[in-house]
Amino acid sequence: MDKPIFSIEMKVRDYECDAQGIVNNANYLHYFENTRHEFMTSVGISFKEAHEKGIDPVLSRADLHYKTPLTGDDVFISSLTVERKGAKIIFHQTIRRKSDNALCCQGNIEVAVLEHGRLSRGDYFDTMMSNYL
Amino acid sequence: MDKPIFSIEMKVRDYECDAQGIVNNANYLHYFENTRHEFMTSVGISFKEAHEKGIDPVLSRADLHYKTPLTGDDVFISSLTVERKGAKIIFHQTIRRKSDNALCCQGNIEVAVLEHGRLSRGDYFDTMMSNYL
Amino acid sequence: MDKPIFSIEMKVRDYECDAQGIVNNANYLHYFENTRHEFMTSVGISFKEAHEKGIDPVLSRADLHYKTPLTGDDVFISSLTVERKGAKIIFHQTIRRKSDNALCCQGNIEVAVLEHGRLSRGDYFDTMMSNYL
Amino acid sequence: MDKPIFSIEMKVRDYECDAQGIVNNANYLHYFENTRHEFMTSVGISFKEAHEKGIDPVLSRADLHYKTPLTGDDVFISSLTVERKGAKIIFHQTIRRKSDNALCCQGNIEVAVLEHGRLSRGDYFDTMMSNYL
Repeated sequence: MDKPIFSIEMKVRDYECDAQGIVNNANYLHYFENTRHEFMTSVGISFKEAHEKGIDPVLSRADLHYKTPLTGDDVFISSLTVERKGAKIIFHQTIRRKSDNALCCQGNIEVAVLEHGRLSRGDYFDTMMSNYL
Repeated sequence: MDKPIFSIEMKVRDYECDAQGIVNNANYLHYFENTRHEFMTSVGISFKEAHEKGIDPVLSRADLHYKTPLTGDDVFISSLTVERKGAKIIFHQTIRRKSDNALCCQGNIEVAVLEHGRLSRGDYFDTMMSNYL
Repeated sequence: MDKPIFSIEMKVRDYECDAQGIVNNANYLHYFENTRHEFMTSVGISFKEAHEKGIDPVLSRADLHYKTPLTGDDVFISSLTVERKGAKIIFHQTIRRKSDNALCCQGNIEVAVLEHGRLSRGDYFDTMMSNYL
Repeated sequence: MDKPIFSIEMKVRDYECDAQGIVNNANYLHYFENTRHEFMTSVGISFKEAHEKGIDPVLSRADLHYKTPLTGDDVFISSLTVERKGAKIIFHQTIRRKSDNALCCQGNIEVAVLEHGRLSRGDYFDTMMSNYL
């Protein structure tokens, strides 16, 4: 991944770990989703406003590579870059353990944009993220 | 609890267990919610239809007593009775491990009914559950 | 609730909301659990260390009163007090929306302490929380 | 995907839907995990027994393609095939809505097998799944 354009710090919560004592694989999608949401909010995107205009982002693909597992009390840095690829917006995301910078999970997340239920170029999101695309 | 009026069988899924190897406390609320939903569906209540009429049930209290913890692969029976108490509908719910009938969790769940955002008697739900109240 | 002895600020994540657009009732147990964990860590309790000594806290009761629902992007303050009641440790917990201090959920959480699988007075936890009991 | 070797029927639970009214993207990983678990149990694999021998399966990659979203009350069929690829075991999984067979999510899930914490060929699992590999 290129130099991240956005990062947040988060901390594992006990209930996110499963019986193996490590963060359950599905929770990385939650962490990634939360990070995209915070990023989009930070550039001024309002999902409520977009939704009222009939514009909705939907996930079309998530490709996750699991490396070092996070465990209880771990603090981690969740980062992303974003690019435009045809009609899709692609987020490249990483989660790194804060204590030693170990890569825990790397994900490529493809988002399609619906306008009134139909696939569109998602120009609304483009405009807002134009500094980063 | 009196003789249950409704029961379903469910099975613990691995991701519902936490690092202690037992079902996380919050998941019992999920199990209970799912059981109420299946019960209400079974008597013909449609949440979609109710919602379109402006009628929405909301949880006002959940009082849970944790007994024997469920763990991975456990099969359990989730049962309920229901009563009317003033403006509230009260569900008395239990979760018992199937293998030995051990009581795992007992909950008293109070539901208030909103009509167009205001507290009501919830007559719609009453009518549907009249055989059980 | 008396003046809280511990508070943390948290923010609702989208995936914690359900189809009604509000935080699902079970997630308040997650928020409460996370707050107790952070509190106990702050007074020096190590769950790992306790567990290695054969000491494990378990939830015996959770009594939750739901007031104003939290929704997407809400920031909230999760606070607690703690008291000793016989063999149990009771946490009184509240979640208040930050923007207007509205009470969203109030919970009384009873924790029993097991030593080598048997109920105990939980003196280990007492010692650590002695400033607050 | 080739003809599935294993299928289970499941039903969406309300709390698995998010504020968009559809099943949250992370829950498909939960559905897939549960399906693999049920499959492996069906061929006689015991995770407890494997773990006691020092053998643990871990997820190394999950590549998910989201098609038609599931929503509240949807019943779906979760199916899989499995293949050996070098040191990895690959599960090809699909989730289809029961009412119309619509493809909801397709996932390729790579599992590595650790023996005493080190990558191995995972022969224990191979033997158990030999009829399918």
